[in-house]
Amino acid sequence: MDRINRPALTDRLREETALFATRHPGSAAQARNSAAHLLTGNGMNWWRMWPGGFPLCIREGQGAEVTDVDGNVLVDLCLGDTGAMTGHAPKGATEAIAASLYKGSSFMLPTEDHLWVAEELERRFGFSHWQYALSASDANRFAIRWARMATGRKKVAIFNHAYHGAVDEALAELDESGAVVPKAGNIGYGIAPSETTKVVEFNDLEGAKAALADEDVAIFLVEPALTNMSIVLPDPGFLEALSEACRDRGTVFLMDETHTISEGYRGYTGTHGIRADMIVIGKPIASGIPAAVYGFASDLAQTIESRYPAPEDEDALGIGTTLTGSAVTLAAIRGTLEHVLTEEAHRHMDALAEHYEAGVKSLFADLGLDWSVIRMGARVEFLYDNTNPRNGSDVLNSFKDYDLNAYLHVALLNRGFVLTPFHNMALMCPATTRAQVDAFHAAFREILEPVVGRD
Amino acid sequence: MDRINRPALTDRLREETALFATRHPGSAAQARNSAAHLLTGNGMNWWRMWPGGFPLCIREGQGAEVTDVDGNVLVDLCLGDTGAMTGHAPKGATEAIAASLYKGSSFMLPTEDHLWVAEELERRFGFSHWQYALSASDANRFAIRWARMATGRKKVAIFNHAYHGAVDEALAELDESGAVVPKAGNIGYGIAPSETTKVVEFNDLEGAKAALADEDVAIFLVEPALTNMSIVLPDPGFLEALSEACRDRGTVFLMDETHTISEGYRGYTGTHGIRADMIVIGKPIASGIPAAVYGFASDLAQTIESRYPAPEDEDALGIGTTLTGSAVTLAAIRGTLEHVLTEEAHRHMDALAEHYEAGVKSLFADLGLDWSVIRMGARVEFLYDNTNPRNGSDVLNSFKDYDLNAYLHVALLNRGFVLTPFHNMALMCPATTRAQVDAFHAAFREILEPVVGRD
Repeated sequence: MDRINRPALTDRLREETALFATRHPGSAAQARNSAAHLLTGNGMNWWRMWPGGFPLCIREGQGAEVTDVDGNVLVDLCLGDTGAMTGHAPKGATEAIAASLYKGSSFMLPTEDHLWVAEELERRFGFSHWQYALSASDANRFAIRWARMATGRKKVAIFNHAYHGAVDEALAELDESGAVVPKAGNIGYGIAPSETTKVVEFNDLEGAKAALADEDVAIFLVEPALTNMSIVLPDPGFLEALSEACRDRGTVFLMDETHTISEGYRGYTGTHGIRADMIVIGKPIASGIPAAVYGFASDLAQTIESRYPAPEDEDALGIGTTLTGSAVTLAAIRGTLEHVLTEEAHRHMDALAEHYEAGVKSLFADLGLDWSVIRMGARVEFLYDNTNPRNGSDVLNSFKDYDLNAYLHVALLNRGFVLTPFHNMALMCPATTRAQVDAFHAAFREILEPVVGRD
Repeated sequence: MDRINRPALTDRLREETALFATRHPGSAAQARNSAAHLLTGNGMNWWRMWPGGFPLCIREGQGAEVTDVDGNVLVDLCLGDTGAMTGHAPKGATEAIAASLYKGSSFMLPTEDHLWVAEELERRFGFSHWQYALSASDANRFAIRWARMATGRKKVAIFNHAYHGAVDEALAELDESGAVVPKAGNIGYGIAPSETTKVVEFNDLEGAKAALADEDVAIFLVEPALTNMSIVLPDPGFLEALSEACRDRGTVFLMDETHTISEGYRGYTGTHGIRADMIVIGKPIASGIPAAVYGFASDLAQTIESRYPAPEDEDALGIGTTLTGSAVTLAAIRGTLEHVLTEEAHRHMDALAEHYEAGVKSLFADLGLDWSVIRMGARVEFLYDNTNPRNGSDVLNSFKDYDLNAYLHVALLNRGFVLTPFHNMALMCPATTRAQVDAFHAAFREILEPVVGRD
C-alpha cells in the first residue's frame, strides 16, 4: 500500500530540484565545465548517481560538516559513504599525516609505523599477521590469491548482493533460476562469473553448506551484514555456523568489514566474537588516505609462509602494488587508530546512531509509514517498506523508488543535510552532535509530511 | 664469458653482508620483530626482495636522500621504484597536500581540483577526457572494462614480460612453445590466463597483427618500453605501426605510462607523439599519495558515453572504489603537476640521467665489462651482458645472477646508495644533484673493481 501522495511528490520534486539549482550555481558550473573533460562528466563514476542533476562541488569539510563552493554548509550524514567515518579532517590523524608528508610518503621500504600498526591491529581485532593494501577491494583481491595458494583451490563464494568493492569475482549475482550471472551493471567482465564464483543467499546456511560441499571453494568472502542495499543483519548464530562449515570444508572464512566496521571499535568480527581466518578493513582506517589492512589467523599465516618460495626464486605476483604499505598510508592508519577511531569515539557514534534511529522511527510512526529502520553500530538505514528482509533478494527493489529517492535527497540537501545517495544510509562520526541529529529529524519531518497521503 | 671473479665475489658478498648487519641494527630489529606480526615478516610483499637479509627501516626522506632508523643517510636512486620520482617530500606538492588534509580528504564528491587537473592533463598529454583511480593497476583494470564496453569484445593483449601492475589479465607470459601460461610467481589465479589474454613478444609487429586479426581483442595494454626487467626500447616505428594496426582492427590502444613516465614531461606518448586511445599514468603523479589518472581520446569517450545507461538505471560496477578521485588525491595530483613534475624539472632529471649513464658506461669500459647501459629519460638500467635485447625473452635471464645482484646492492647500501632491488634501475628526481651522481660513480667503481677478473 503506497502511502505516498504521488501528485504531491511530483510537484515537490520539481520545486526542490529547481531550488537546488538556484542554491548551487557554483556546483552546477563545475558540472557543466566537467562534461568536456571528465568521462561522463565525472571524475569518479559514482558522482553520476548523486541526486539533483549534478553533484555538489565541495570546498572543505570539518568534522561532520561540509561547505560547498557556493558557501552552503551541510551536515554530512553520508561521510564519503564510510570513507570519512572519522569525520572530516580529524585533528589527531590529520596532524600525524601532515607530519609524515614532510618526512616522505613512499619508500617501498618499512617505517616504524608498520610494526606499531600490526601490533595495534592484533590487539584490537585479534588476528596475528597483517599485510597492507590501498583499498578494501585490493585487500580482497590479495586475500583471494593467498587463499588459493593456501588451499590449492580456485573458487570464491559470496553472498547474493553483498558488497566487496570492485573485485571481479564478487561482481556476480543469482538470476531467478538460481544461476550465477554477472551482476547488473557489470559492464566489462571478461569471464562468465559462474566460472570463478559461487553465490549463496545471505542467511541461507544450507545453501552455503551445499556450495562448500564439493571442497573446491578456496575462500568465502563474508560481508557480516549486507550493507549495500539497506542493512540486512545475520540471523542469530548464522555467522558462527557458517564459520564452522568453512572450517569443516577447508575453506578460508574471510570477514570483509568494509562497511560493517561501523559496528564498533573492534568491527563486527570482534564485537560479536566471530572466528575467522581473515579480516579486511578499509575505507576509514586511514582517515581518507587510500589504504586498507588485512589480517590472517596464525594457522593460515603459517600455511602460507610454509608454501612461499624463497626471495631469490620468485616474487608473488598479483599481491600489492608499488605504493602499497607506503610510509604515508601507515602514518595515516596509525594516526586514525591512535587518535580517531577510539573506543570512546565509537561509544559516542553508537549512542548518536541510536538517537537518530529512534527519531526516524518515531517520525515514521507519527506519519503512519510502516517503513523499516535498521541500525548497525554507527550506521542507520531506512527502507520504504517493512518486509523484514533476510537476504539481498528481499531488499532488491525496496529503494528503487526513483522519484521518492530523488525528492528526499534533494530536499534534504536544500535544508543542509547530506544523506548517502545510493540508498538511505546515515552514518555518525566522532564529531557528529546530538543537535545535528535533532535538526535532521526536524528537516526530515518537514519534507516527509507534505508527500505522505492521509488516507 | 664471465668476467666476474667468482671466488672474490663470494668473499666480498660475505664481508659486505656482515658489514650491512653491523651498520643497520635498528632495521634488523624491526625485521625480527615484524616476523611475528606481518605475513612473511613483511607488510608489503616486495620488501622480501631487498638484498642484505632484511629491508632498511626508513625514518625519513628529503629530496633524493633517505635516513634510516640507525641514522645512516643514503642517496636514493630507487625512489620507491618510481613512486617517489618527485623526490621525497617535494616542497610545493607537500604543502598543497597538507593544506588539503586540513580541509577534508574524502567526500565522494568533486572539488575544484578535479576540473583543474583534467584540464592540465589534457594540455600536457593531449587526451580529452579523464577519470581517476588509486593505482595504475586500478586504472588498467577500469580501462579494460571501459574498452570491453566500447568494443563488445572480451580479450586483452599484452607484451611478454611487460609490467601492468597487479591486473589479473596481465599476469600471463609465453612458454617455450609460445602458449599463454600464468606468469612465474602468479600464485593465485582463478582462470587460466589463456582464456582472457593474448601475449605477444615486444617489437614483434607481425605477432601483434596476428593477435589482432580475429577482431576479438578489446584492448592492447602497451608498455611503450619494457621496464620491469631492464629497459627494452621499441624499434623505430614499432609503436606507430602497432597503433595503426589496433585502429584497423577496432582494438583500443592503451599506453600504460606506469614506468615510462620517466621519459619526460609529457610521458612517452607525448614525447614521441604516439597516437593512442587511452593513457594510464600512476605512481609519482600524486607525490606518493596513492593515485592514478587515465585519459581517453575524444572519439572513445563519445562511444562510451553513448552506451552508458542513465544514472537512475545502473551503476557501472567494477569502475572505481570509494576513495577513488577523493579530495586529497586530487590536491596531490594538482600539487605535483603544478610544482614538481614540471618541464624544467624533467630537463634537470634527463641531464643528470645522461651524466649517470655516461659515467657507468665509462666505468664498464675501464673494467673491460661488455655490459649494456640503457636510458629512458630520467631512468637508467644496466645489464650484465650486451645482447641488445629486443623483447622480454631476450633479457629474462640477464640479471638472474643472485650473488652478483646481492653483492652490488648490499655493497652500495653500505656506501650510502640505494639502487632498485629487483633489477639495476637508477632514477633521478628533481632534487638529485650532480655531486650525488659523481659520488655514486666513485662508489660503484670501488665495489666493482675487486670482483672483476683481469684475464
